[in-house]
Amino acid sequence: MAVIGILGHGTVGSGVAEVLLRNGNGIEKKTGTVLTIKKIFDRNSFPDLPYSHLFTRDISEVLDDPEIDIVVETMGGLEPAYSYTKRALESGKFVVTSNKELVAEYGPLLQKIAHQHHVEYFYEASVGGGIPIIRPLRQCLAANNIYEITGILNGTTNFILTEMRKKGKDFETALSEAQARGYAERDPSADICGFDAQRKIAILSSIAFGQKVLYTDINAEGISRITKEDMLSAEELGYVIKLVAHATRMGDGIYAMVSPIMLPLSHPLADVEDVFNAVLVRGDAIGDVLFYGRGAGKYPTASAVIGDIIEAANYQPNGNGTAAMQDEVSATVLEPDHFMFLYKFFLRLKTKDAEGFKKEVSASLPDARVHIFKNPLLDGEAGVLTGARSESELQGIRDTLASLDNTITVLSVFKVSE
Amino acid sequence: MAVIGILGHGTVGSGVAEVLLRNGNGIEKKTGTVLTIKKIFDRNSFPDLPYSHLFTRDISEVLDDPEIDIVVETMGGLEPAYSYTKRALESGKFVVTSNKELVAEYGPLLQKIAHQHHVEYFYEASVGGGIPIIRPLRQCLAANNIYEITGILNGTTNFILTEMRKKGKDFETALSEAQARGYAERDPSADICGFDAQRKIAILSSIAFGQKVLYTDINAEGISRITKEDMLSAEELGYVIKLVAHATRMGDGIYAMVSPIMLPLSHPLADVEDVFNAVLVRGDAIGDVLFYGRGAGKYPTASAVIGDIIEAANYQPNGNGTAAMQDEVSATVLEPDHFMFLYKFFLRLKTKDAEGFKKEVSASLPDARVHIFKNPLLDGEAGVLTGARSESELQGIRDTLASLDNTITVLSVFKVSE
Repeated sequence: MAVIGILGHGTVGSGVAEVLLRNGNGIEKKTGTVLTIKKIFDRNSFPDLPYSHLFTRDISEVLDDPEIDIVVETMGGLEPAYSYTKRALESGKFVVTSNKELVAEYGPLLQKIAHQHHVEYFYEASVGGGIPIIRPLRQCLAANNIYEITGILNGTTNFILTEMRKKGKDFETALSEAQARGYAERDPSADICGFDAQRKIAILSSIAFGQKVLYTDINAEGISRITKEDMLSAEELGYVIKLVAHATRMGDGIYAMVSPIMLPLSHPLADVEDVFNAVLVRGDAIGDVLFYGRGAGKYPTASAVIGDIIEAANYQPNGNGTAAMQDEVSATVLEPDHFMFLYKFFLRLKTKDAEGFKKEVSASLPDARVHIFKNPLLDGEAGVLTGARSESELQGIRDTLASLDNTITVLSVFKVSE
Repeated sequence: MAVIGILGHGTVGSGVAEVLLRNGNGIEKKTGTVLTIKKIFDRNSFPDLPYSHLFTRDISEVLDDPEIDIVVETMGGLEPAYSYTKRALESGKFVVTSNKELVAEYGPLLQKIAHQHHVEYFYEASVGGGIPIIRPLRQCLAANNIYEITGILNGTTNFILTEMRKKGKDFETALSEAQARGYAERDPSADICGFDAQRKIAILSSIAFGQKVLYTDINAEGISRITKEDMLSAEELGYVIKLVAHATRMGDGIYAMVSPIMLPLSHPLADVEDVFNAVLVRGDAIGDVLFYGRGAGKYPTASAVIGDIIEAANYQPNGNGTAAMQDEVSATVLEPDHFMFLYKFFLRLKTKDAEGFKKEVSASLPDARVHIFKNPLLDGEAGVLTGARSESELQGIRDTLASLDNTITVLSVFKVSE
């Protein structure tokens, strides 16, 4: 038996309440745990809901109620979520959250505070919506030396890129569609600039590598510069463009980034479409393992929150033995200029004479491959696929190509994964 | 700190020992748990191994040693694994297993014995090799009313089908290749007849549906009848043939089966190739979630076993709160004749006159679609894709088609998934 207080009755919070009320019997039958919501803190009241009597505008009715064991924080944002979470943990309540901003900023600290008060801070829902990824990383894969995580972690941008690719929409039109469907906020910058994915890969790599990875150390690039012509050119070469979050161990440091990447159609993440998310984990024992599902949304996220609630309800002090996020020392996140992580690069260019361009490239970049586009919408354009290079070498390649006699202009540049 | 005894130093047991020795420090750093192997029970000794001093041929040196907290059973088979497991649990030791035969046959009983002695019986490695699936089902997805599980659960048959499809091999040749690579046993019947997948879907559905599903109640069909012409015909229609294990709730009963199925290329399981496994779970809150990875092999399976060892080492009595397999009442597994689960069916036939055949079909089965194969290897053959039908209606359709003037013979029949 556990008594729950919910902070914030928005999309996720209301999903948690609904699923707990609907599936409470099934949860009790499966896990032997009775979960009861005692209070819901929200600015608004919801008089028409069957559980309208649970609402309060007084935060102390949740945080100061000794009967409440578990606080569900589904408010989002840093404040007041941080203060409320801290108060709850300090009074010995478990906190379950779906708030990735807070976890990425203060997760390790809040986890430390939780442990000092013999409780836990659970955040499965902060990454990948309903997909079980935090707990599998912390528990099931703990035997592994994990050396790489690659994911499509933002459903909104993945929806936009899917719309652009499948329906030939430009970025603005696809973004409007995402907003019309409620996938993107009115201010969509957290998604489209890659900041959401940046926080999520920081959370995942902190767990996987056992070092505190600061999201502010991770280079993030968004999708707003991607054009429908980029999509068409990638398609003609057998690639798709995805917003990929990636983290790899490199010696004692970590290389991490969020960036649009061209993935070959055979890549395990190439098929991940619409608002779906997927995370590919590479470990020394497990090899590759992939988790795929709905990365956002009311009920999927509620599913993850309630999984955490059940764990909290059955938690025994000193009994978790799961990989914690480190608060002490921040990881060395390598600067793009310093690391030796190699990519192929794809450059799309407007050219004068295609065959002449081809000859010039083969003289100046012998390991590059040139493709003259057949699609009439890419008329007069060529694509160059370089050999494997570090990011610091890219500017030189770009300058070389820009200075060729047959080059009119460099239209776009993408990293390419094999 | 936990002290471990391993029963059986075969592929999986030796993988567990190696990974524990190699990654022990990392595991301690991540989880705070020190794991020590004290004894390894095996008929053979391994004098050249760095841990050769750990071996014993006397089972009591493991089962009667009060210092040993956790017994890892990687022997396989029913006996003596069952007796040893029971003895270990009865003396208050945790047991971690990779033995799907034993879990499918006696899992619920052994779990009950474990609970009576305030310990647990862990079996993550019994399904899906290294893929975290049991724990996510039991914990992370416990909020959901799960209504469907579909998986490619046997790596050997998936390898054989992949070889047949990609390299045009016939079944016998692909099987020999699987044996040469060590994927298939000398007696491959457990894999190719579908018995391995049958046990695994019984385990998964027992957890997901909270009812004991007897594997003996599940209809299992293998892959040995599949020909390379079947593969070619599926390919021409945009499908692949996979050995699929499936379980669905139907009212109070469960429909479960293992069978070759034609999947469209867009199906999430269509891309699962070689020895990889994948499990697709459908729940009312989460929607679809997919787990993908290496379903077998020394190190992936060891990864899953050690995940369980870490949980056992940190286990607190009364503190699990995870969905247990039910021992009391067996689920009602519906007979094929009784259920209303509908498939489309695909029939491949040798015909006399293709156009004449087409006309006859459209007269006798108006909702069926006829395809005349273009591939010269399928010369004189036609494929019929029926409308949605129950399995009990299939014989009638087959008889109807067999009796047409332009039919020479029915070559093969497959279920089709959309």
